[in-house]
Amino acid sequence: MATILIKGGTLVTMNADRQIIRADLLIENDRIKKIRPAIDFSADTIIDARDRVIIPGLIQPHIHLTQTLFRGLADDLELLDWLKKRVWPLEAAHTFESNRISARLGISELILGGTTAVLDMGTVQHTRAICEEVRDTGFRAVVGKCMMDHGQGVPRELMESLQDSIEESSRLMNEWHESAGGRIRYAFAPRFAVSCSDALLLRVKEIARANHTMVHTHASENQGEIALVEKERGMRNIQYFEKIGLTGETLALAHCIWLSKEEMNILADTGTRIVHCPSSNMKLASGIAKIPELLDMGAQVSLAADGAPCNNNMSMFTEMRHAALIQKVRLLSPTAMPADTIFEMATLGGARALGLAHELGSLEVGKKADLALVDLNQPHTSPGMDRDPVSQLVYSASACDVKTTIVNGRILMKDRQLTTIDIKDTIAQANHLCQAVMARAGISSVVKPDVNREAV
Amino acid sequence: MATILIKGGTLVTMNADRQIIRADLLIENDRIKKIRPAIDFSADTIIDARDRVIIPGLIQPHIHLTQTLFRGLADDLELLDWLKKRVWPLEAAHTFESNRISARLGISELILGGTTAVLDMGTVQHTRAICEEVRDTGFRAVVGKCMMDHGQGVPRELMESLQDSIEESSRLMNEWHESAGGRIRYAFAPRFAVSCSDALLLRVKEIARANHTMVHTHASENQGEIALVEKERGMRNIQYFEKIGLTGETLALAHCIWLSKEEMNILADTGTRIVHCPSSNMKLASGIAKIPELLDMGAQVSLAADGAPCNNNMSMFTEMRHAALIQKVRLLSPTAMPADTIFEMATLGGARALGLAHELGSLEVGKKADLALVDLNQPHTSPGMDRDPVSQLVYSASACDVKTTIVNGRILMKDRQLTTIDIKDTIAQANHLCQAVMARAGISSVVKPDVNREAV
Repeated sequence: MATILIKGGTLVTMNADRQIIRADLLIENDRIKKIRPAIDFSADTIIDARDRVIIPGLIQPHIHLTQTLFRGLADDLELLDWLKKRVWPLEAAHTFESNRISARLGISELILGGTTAVLDMGTVQHTRAICEEVRDTGFRAVVGKCMMDHGQGVPRELMESLQDSIEESSRLMNEWHESAGGRIRYAFAPRFAVSCSDALLLRVKEIARANHTMVHTHASENQGEIALVEKERGMRNIQYFEKIGLTGETLALAHCIWLSKEEMNILADTGTRIVHCPSSNMKLASGIAKIPELLDMGAQVSLAADGAPCNNNMSMFTEMRHAALIQKVRLLSPTAMPADTIFEMATLGGARALGLAHELGSLEVGKKADLALVDLNQPHTSPGMDRDPVSQLVYSASACDVKTTIVNGRILMKDRQLTTIDIKDTIAQANHLCQAVMARAGISSVVKPDVNREAV
Repeated sequence: MATILIKGGTLVTMNADRQIIRADLLIENDRIKKIRPAIDFSADTIIDARDRVIIPGLIQPHIHLTQTLFRGLADDLELLDWLKKRVWPLEAAHTFESNRISARLGISELILGGTTAVLDMGTVQHTRAICEEVRDTGFRAVVGKCMMDHGQGVPRELMESLQDSIEESSRLMNEWHESAGGRIRYAFAPRFAVSCSDALLLRVKEIARANHTMVHTHASENQGEIALVEKERGMRNIQYFEKIGLTGETLALAHCIWLSKEEMNILADTGTRIVHCPSSNMKLASGIAKIPELLDMGAQVSLAADGAPCNNNMSMFTEMRHAALIQKVRLLSPTAMPADTIFEMATLGGARALGLAHELGSLEVGKKADLALVDLNQPHTSPGMDRDPVSQLVYSASACDVKTTIVNGRILMKDRQLTTIDIKDTIAQANHLCQAVMARAGISSVVKPDVNREAV
């Protein structure tokens, strides 16, 4: 029975009363066992947290680990060009090994930034590489292979038949759902309406319902995308998902920017999980989601970084800050999105989007021991120690302020050092494999040239 | 003759050809002496920079060091409430010592984030505290006491007579302009049109011209502010500055959000220095400045974080990212603000706003040795080493990736350790003095309560 005792930290609990308290926290195996002012117990590991704020692990319900290797390769393009000119050719050029290293690099960044769980969409192939990396690094993820059986401009390597797509997804679900001691779950991941036939989406709905798994897709990110859906399906995106019966608490929809009033009502009424990705939406010039309005209607909202080539990082701290600031300036109202609301989206909101709110998202006895220790006693967050840690976390802090990350009761990062990943080797492999993938995708010559090592 | 040799770094030079090169760089005293592929010289200090990207020191031409102590004390308020309910009462409650620690804490954060020079606006009193801190820490700043002789709701301690304001400013100019080996310069800093009489602004113009110093003020940040100016002066803000003869290359105007087409023309035609502060403008819900349009008209634009209570940090990396992303999404155009343009605003643009483009803003032989070494070989910036460092700097990196900062040929930070500031003591003093300033300002009870140290 492995135990970790965290002594004297300031806990942002996110419990029902949103208490922020000074207390000790005891972990037994994979769960939080006790939270008390002073716990006297000779645990296997004791962490002095007197200078630390302890937060529930951050949860990002829309990540593409498969794309980490493409960071910086798709700057300054709008969504459909970004997909067709860069991301699809790059995904098509992935090998099992490059997908593995892409996932490992992404998981490294996430752990270092206090993210403890994600809902991930892989590429069409090589999904096992991602599952193995989640398993071996001790991370927590709901994974799904990307499904594509329809649409224009898709490289041969990514286009599947309906049957192959369903069979491969089902095989992966049977192999990985609830594996690695429950750290890995499976979710069906049809890419977006534009890339999926009616028949595929209907089959996904049935199988996901029968197996109690989430469905993870993109929706209403871009005006061009919506025009395509309207042209093909004769209605808007969310209306279409509603019509085929996909909406509801088991559907996680990334983006949800361009919604009609009727679509906003559908999402709020059905409890569909909205995943807000502010950086990605800004960088791809997609638009600004109407999050305060959606929250007012009772919609379920969480927060995520999306992938490395549209962001270009995967820090939840960056997303929290962007999510707050972008609404204030859009609505010209400084109270449009307070820090407390943002922090809830980043923790409990994420847990709900994963379908795991009973297990994750707050520091409470009985929940899984997924948490992070943050140093808020630094120049860029001072003064303020012990006054309003949520303001500091949302407005002042950054990923590098996270000092320790624990997932499922295991320390995955301590003092900025990863415990399950050789990061030097991972970065070296990523740099090497990135060149090879670029060459196979035929984009070596269109991105910026290397640094000039000669001329002065 | 002190020398520093930096070996093997990747230099983002910002020279006329915008070369990015692998080279050695030799510093002799306060200047860059040589840039060559290989320099063989037994310098006093040799820095191995084979894993580092070397950038010109970042320059922020609109900072309020006096407000660093107020971080987190003024969240979720719009500009005029923010001033009247929090920032003015807090500034009025400053002592010489609290102003000193506020400046020291702010300078610490700036150095740690690779910022090497600022244009600073102090409060009305205790300006010497800021000058002494710039002098003693080795930092570079153009400082000015805040001038206020007019307007509503200003605390007694901040309201001056015209004569006192001019006399005190002139005394400070005589004492500090071009002091500390040239690292400190003086700029007249009338707060904004709303707080300054016609007579004061006219006198400032004359004295600044006669002494070849910059004038630093705020303009057109907020619609309420513009309404006040229109009511009192019968015209819009920039038109008013133009009419009284203040516009031109020696005027630095922070914000410039709400401009008429005529005002945009005035700023572009006169070469007035615009200082874009995206985070501050977003968090205070002020609006989004039309920076791409201004650049297209030939306007001079730089970038800054403003102060800690409106941001809530002073990282130029955060500002670069926000400045890029906010324009892309405002214009729904992913190319609206490319990384290269942003990085120029953060370096050469800042140098121009300080009136020091001949000395600062690029890595070139003969210029002042103000620079930073950045580690871009990390999980959140990989892959990418040596491919496109400007994309990495703007879109992926954060302040904590800066590993060494050099100002005027002196190492002020190395391996994240400040060399001229005791940071532990500074943070402790800041936490302590912040409480006292809050109590004197009468806002102890209106900001959030302390963390509960008892209940569980």
